[in-house]
Amino acid sequence: MQSLGARTYLFPTPILLVGTYDEDYKPNLMTAAWGGICCSDPPCVSVSLRKATYSYSAIVARKAFTIGIPMESQVREADYLGLVSGRNVDKFAVSGLTVVRSALVDAPYAKEIPFVLECELVNSVELGLHTLFVGKIIDAKADESILTDDGRPDIAKLKPFSFDPVHQGYHGTGAFLGKAFSVGKQ
Amino acid sequence: MQSLGARTYLFPTPILLVGTYDEDYKPNLMTAAWGGICCSDPPCVSVSLRKATYSYSAIVARKAFTIGIPMESQVREADYLGLVSGRNVDKFAVSGLTVVRSALVDAPYAKEIPFVLECELVNSVELGLHTLFVGKIIDAKADESILTDDGRPDIAKLKPFSFDPVHQGYHGTGAFLGKAFSVGKQ
Repeated sequence: MQSLGARTYLFPTPILLVGTYDEDYKPNLMTAAWGGICCSDPPCVSVSLRKATYSYSAIVARKAFTIGIPMESQVREADYLGLVSGRNVDKFAVSGLTVVRSALVDAPYAKEIPFVLECELVNSVELGLHTLFVGKIIDAKADESILTDDGRPDIAKLKPFSFDPVHQGYHGTGAFLGKAFSVGKQ
Repeated sequence: MQSLGARTYLFPTPILLVGTYDEDYKPNLMTAAWGGICCSDPPCVSVSLRKATYSYSAIVARKAFTIGIPMESQVREADYLGLVSGRNVDKFAVSGLTVVRSALVDAPYAKEIPFVLECELVNSVELGLHTLFVGKIIDAKADESILTDDGRPDIAKLKPFSFDPVHQGYHGTGAFLGKAFSVGKQ
């Protein structure tokens, strides 16, 4: 094994579209890759943001956020949302996304992003450059076009993609490899 | 958008092989899916475990762990490592994996798993059923077979896979979709 130094490499890393309102109710979406589900009961998701970001201040102010998962076909929008700050730009407008105000938490999401978690802030952990925010998942919502017959999201329809923190690229989701809690029984 | 309830759905979700020593230095590997990178400086990774797990007690005792990322071809081993508790079984032996003692942190990893992060515990957050552990990444290590010409890990060689928390299946990594911080500039 070759040493690579203390690197933030992990595979796969998700593409999280963090939806927030600032103190004046201006909506914003920011792409983040440091996060994931962090508790089953209560259901919680974490996302880490730098203090310098506009979204950081918005989460601290509103104590709520949404996490949207874009599809492969939305890779340009997702990349754009990580390139500029919402402080100076209306990113929803520039990227052609429609603001939807959550009825459950004090945060917006985009109508065109087919999967979203609506979250209430329950914990903040200062780690250094990043602060880890823990959101309690109040509801998960999906566009009907990505549901299977059982009424749940289908990866083959959602086509989520991932971020490569080493070479900074995006990759799609590949073939089904096997059932969890099953293929290892042999 | 259709409401699905408060669900722990996120895409993609990683397959993290958590390596630990217990108080008697018995090595163990456990598969977890709730975690990810959570800070760039200092570089940190999080993983959430239930208190009932053998790995939970080991991390609390040793204040260190490793996070290995398996390849597609290791999907059976990865699934097995999430099916049984190391309290009663030597999971390294049963899965045919070789214990390597980290020279940097008080935890083991598997020689056959081609990518690993060696971590010191720096934070624990009680969230409910799960406790979120934050590990400071002391070193990332990769098998030479997965490196590109630039000496860094290549996703096309590592072939990492992901967990589908909805239908509980494993999926490979798909095609390259574009460069990050680039495709969204248009």
